[in-house]
Amino acid sequence: MRGEKADMAGEFRWILGLDIGGTNVVVGLVPLEGGEPLGVRKLLTKAEEGGEEVVRRVAVAANDAMEEVFSLHSGSRDQVAGIGIGAPGPLNRKTGVLLEAPNLGWTDFPLRELVSHALELPAEVDNDANCATYGEWWMGAGKGSKTLVGLTLGTGIGGGLVINGRLHHGASDAAAEFGHMTIDSTGRKCKCGNYGCLEAYASGPNIAARAVEGIEAGVESGIVDLVDGDMEKVTAATVYEGVVRGDAYAHEVMKETAKFLGVGVANLINGLNPDAVVIAGGVTRAGDHLFVPLRKEVRRRAFRSAVEACRIVPAALPETAGVIGAAGIFKKATFGTI
Amino acid sequence: MRGEKADMAGEFRWILGLDIGGTNVVVGLVPLEGGEPLGVRKLLTKAEEGGEEVVRRVAVAANDAMEEVFSLHSGSRDQVAGIGIGAPGPLNRKTGVLLEAPNLGWTDFPLRELVSHALELPAEVDNDANCATYGEWWMGAGKGSKTLVGLTLGTGIGGGLVINGRLHHGASDAAAEFGHMTIDSTGRKCKCGNYGCLEAYASGPNIAARAVEGIEAGVESGIVDLVDGDMEKVTAATVYEGVVRGDAYAHEVMKETAKFLGVGVANLINGLNPDAVVIAGGVTRAGDHLFVPLRKEVRRRAFRSAVEACRIVPAALPETAGVIGAAGIFKKATFGTI
Repeated sequence: MRGEKADMAGEFRWILGLDIGGTNVVVGLVPLEGGEPLGVRKLLTKAEEGGEEVVRRVAVAANDAMEEVFSLHSGSRDQVAGIGIGAPGPLNRKTGVLLEAPNLGWTDFPLRELVSHALELPAEVDNDANCATYGEWWMGAGKGSKTLVGLTLGTGIGGGLVINGRLHHGASDAAAEFGHMTIDSTGRKCKCGNYGCLEAYASGPNIAARAVEGIEAGVESGIVDLVDGDMEKVTAATVYEGVVRGDAYAHEVMKETAKFLGVGVANLINGLNPDAVVIAGGVTRAGDHLFVPLRKEVRRRAFRSAVEACRIVPAALPETAGVIGAAGIFKKATFGTI
Repeated sequence: MRGEKADMAGEFRWILGLDIGGTNVVVGLVPLEGGEPLGVRKLLTKAEEGGEEVVRRVAVAANDAMEEVFSLHSGSRDQVAGIGIGAPGPLNRKTGVLLEAPNLGWTDFPLRELVSHALELPAEVDNDANCATYGEWWMGAGKGSKTLVGLTLGTGIGGGLVINGRLHHGASDAAAEFGHMTIDSTGRKCKCGNYGCLEAYASGPNIAARAVEGIEAGVESGIVDLVDGDMEKVTAATVYEGVVRGDAYAHEVMKETAKFLGVGVANLINGLNPDAVVIAGGVTRAGDHLFVPLRKEVRRRAFRSAVEACRIVPAALPETAGVIGAAGIFKKATFGTI
């Protein structure tokens, strides 16, 4: 069976990767053997136009991308093995239906079937954070790792877990919700309803909220000037900007963020003993301002042998990990190997 | 290769399982195809006599067990495939050396080699909590599960993780240290040096310590009478005894224990989406007094689809999971299947 699958792969040169997010969709053709995606297109999702309309526009972009790549590499459509799709969960991987997508506003949407039909290619669908982690494992900062933990810090905190080259999905495709790990059981209220989730401290909006809380309590900070005094405009990017400008309070907020993240990462290291933890998202632009105190907190909390076995690194493919990972998931599911 | 391995298994009928703990050693012959261990022997470890002496006595007990089983089932020594050994970690599975065993007091002890030599059989060694979890997966409360989390509540809190029939060991054989998951980052000091570990709330000694702290702060409780006023004698078993006798404060301590455990279990469910969490250890004798508030806390904290996909149950093999799991680990490593 494996041999047969591998032979099948021989005819193909590319996999189409789609990364469907709340704001943008990224489309690209990923070489079957791995490599940077070609013909990359980025378009606004405009989810409010409805799922069918988004699929129609994505198909136009994908066809456009394929045309470009085929003309440059004398390829043809029958060399595309299929489509990998990353989308915000929760979703049913077996049926390819998005069950609920708060960032898109679609419910019970048969995404895989519609995309597959529109482009006349077989397709696989998986959670966006899983795809990003798989992309980093296949070709990014997690390359070569046998146990990889991925964390994506954005509006929420997404997670992914790759063990021996395979995403761990769990019993109901709900695994790797590392953002909703309790790190302080009586702590900050999270939008999931729980108290003290990692996400309630270290997601973008919560980094901003913690910064604003301090300022409203009387701390002086250059962050106020960066938003012309309008505290509702403070985002995690503002805090980062404050760090770059040398603002002491922005530094403190970043350091606290690193400590909270460190608690979560230490838990993941003690529990899973990964050889890599890859962290993606805008806040990683803070570089050493984030990673140095983060690693310090991890060393303080996790077992030495496990800490020594693990690199904690920023993502290497911030723009394309989702597309690459989606293609990788299609490849793994279809050909058995990667 | 697989076929060859399976053929090899055909000659054999049993695997010897050894569960080496700080207090007791349990020995038994586990049928190759699974089943209750035969010829079970339990002896005091007496680790202070030194590793070599313990191995000598364990070998005597194992030979004795084999003699008995062979005479009852007209078997012979060459029908024993080998030995699975569970021992307190950390250990090096490749070399079979116990690196450090605080509960035994041995350092860099070549356990596998000595046991294998003494009994003239091949052997495999793994962490005791891993073995217990694997035993519950093979023949106990975790049977049939694809993602199984095991927790053993004792002097410490041990963990195990079985994914698709295989223990997850991680990059340095240090995975599944779920007892050292931070659930309150500024909480109780743990003996590992960290603050707010699950173990610092829900291990046997910490259940007792929390009970005593309340009494010393002025709470009235029948627990005092159970130890004739000598608070140093309070153990988790005393708290359980208080629950059985209807003591209100003992109930409260048990309920709090369940809530702390619930935070940890919710984290494991959100992170790993297991189909079963199996909890072992003396405190599970509290039954519904523990499991009802535990499941309630989990429902409060974890995602519904993940909670609905997971049973949270007491261990089914409290006495023999370690022996069965050790034998299972040998079988898996030697024959590739189980």
